Amino acid sequence: MRPVCVIGLGLIGGSLLRAASAAGREAWGATASTVDTEAAKVDGFRVESRVDVALRLARERDAIVVVAVPLPEVDLTLSTVARNAPDCLLTDVVSVKAPVVEAARQFAGRARFVGGHPMAGTSASGWAAGSADLFKDAAWVLTIEDETDLGAWREVAQLVLDCGAQPVPASAAAHDDAVARISHLPHLLAAVLAAVGADSGMLPLALAAGSYTDGTRVAGTRPELVRAMCEGNRASLLDAVDDALGRLGAARGALASTGSLGATVGAGHRGWQALNEYRTTPRPAGRIDLSAPDSREALLALGARGGRIVGLEGDFAVTG
Amino acid sequence: MRPVCVIGLGLIGGSLLRAASAAGREAWGATASTVDTEAAKVDGFRVESRVDVALRLARERDAIVVVAVPLPEVDLTLSTVARNAPDCLLTDVVSVKAPVVEAARQFAGRARFVGGHPMAGTSASGWAAGSADLFKDAAWVLTIEDETDLGAWREVAQLVLDCGAQPVPASAAAHDDAVARISHLPHLLAAVLAAVGADSGMLPLALAAGSYTDGTRVAGTRPELVRAMCEGNRASLLDAVDDALGRLGAARGALASTGSLGATVGAGHRGWQALNEYRTTPRPAGRIDLSAPDSREALLALGARGGRIVGLEGDFAVTG
Repeated sequence: MRPVCVIGLGLIGGSLLRAASAAGREAWGATASTVDTEAAKVDGFRVESRVDVALRLARERDAIVVVAVPLPEVDLTLSTVARNAPDCLLTDVVSVKAPVVEAARQFAGRARFVGGHPMAGTSASGWAAGSADLFKDAAWVLTIEDETDLGAWREVAQLVLDCGAQPVPASAAAHDDAVARISHLPHLLAAVLAAVGADSGMLPLALAAGSYTDGTRVAGTRPELVRAMCEGNRASLLDAVDDALGRLGAARGALASTGSLGATVGAGHRGWQALNEYRTTPRPAGRIDLSAPDSREALLALGARGGRIVGLEGDFAVTG
Repeated sequence: MRPVCVIGLGLIGGSLLRAASAAGREAWGATASTVDTEAAKVDGFRVESRVDVALRLARERDAIVVVAVPLPEVDLTLSTVARNAPDCLLTDVVSVKAPVVEAARQFAGRARFVGGHPMAGTSASGWAAGSADLFKDAAWVLTIEDETDLGAWREVAQLVLDCGAQPVPASAAAHDDAVARISHLPHLLAAVLAAVGADSGMLPLALAAGSYTDGTRVAGTRPELVRAMCEGNRASLLDAVDDALGRLGAARGALASTGSLGATVGAGHRGWQALNEYRTTPRPAGRIDLSAPDSREALLALGARGGRIVGLEGDFAVTG
């Protein structure tokens, strides 16, 4: 199995280092955070004191390099990759994909890059919050663009499977539109709801029960993390916010004029049912021949219909 | 202890009948639902086959009458109360208060009425979903208007305490404004989010994780229940929706122009902290003399600062 070099040892990077090690891969990390470095060393993991040293080792050992730093540090990290391991097999775990795909083209053009995003996390952060089980059964998007090397894609998919997660093929643009709707917009609506509830005296807080607790839970996430992921997905998030503003405005209009919220509540209930049905219906099993000429289209079609890859057997991706 | 007559044996009414019985009160119910009637009888509770019979028994026994029917049926039920138990001690458990207070004035003006709203529930409904523990440690608003008889208020407060909940004094208007923000707006935002996520193909549903699951959970509630409570609180909900639309529009503008969501995310995090602080800070203990001339104002001030009543001792309400 190909070794793994993880740059950045926060919640996601630290969990990936643990999971790859637990799967039997040689793995090491590097981070600018002395807190995370010390904590990872205490837990028995190999951590290089300098990112360039870790990357030169990756070049020697032909390792997969995983960029697990916050979006604002991606450009600099990719430049360091280009200087120290220019031809490596490269992936990342950042929560937006189009800006990272573009940065990889610009700053690390010789690397064989596959963008990644594990749909897992907690509101905590840092090495100490991580675990080898964080990715268990999670969806993990792996990008497919025109220039993506499918051999590299297959290798990263194997790492994802080794971490207990299931690869979901998607273009960076489709990923960013989707996460704007199901991750970034929920954070904005939670922020709006938390402010509306708290800016009107103590009685609302005293009466708040399940619907408010659920609806505001992610407003407890560290603001800098929420800002980084939302602001980094600006174009897609604007579309999603406009969709929400349109629907909320329509609800307001209907309530004020006819008094009926039937359309709004009905559409919401149907949306909830669609999610519930997706989650309770077994995904059909299948196989995609990764050596076939149309494999790229077959993978993207799998992701578009909500499918995942659950295993790799020779040239075939097992889907379900 | 004064007996209790519960009209309507759904989730809330059925739980109240169980809780009042468990507290040692004589209690009976009546409902138009044959399903709930049969289920309650099987569980060993006394259920009259006709509402008027249950109410005449309430008159004979000088019981507290609890109206636990959906808002659209309140007027008719109150008329039946006025015909069969006109001078009774009367309360309700409907999720909006100003319309019920007004209906009580109009249809049951001789009854000593105290509006009530237990802040407890589940997304399930009907007798079978209820339990004697449903109200444990829940806030339970009891309205205080100019005409409210504080003797009657004290008796209903004792029933609430017997059910394991804690009375929160508030005017009907303050209650309705508060629940618009922490219950009805969350249901509308959940509906909007569930529709935005589901109306854009399968990939968003495949990637949905905690923030989306939390943010859409209450969109699974039966649409007719959501509509009844939201549409019944139209004026207050319009204010809350306008507040949310203004904040979401401001977020949209900031994201489009400067790219920063700092103000939105910061305000949301402070709101979340305020809720968290309210819930983790012990409420100061105190006593309110219910026989004092300013007791009405003292009770309303208690509710406005997020306090609750935790016991009754002679003329005193114990607060905390």
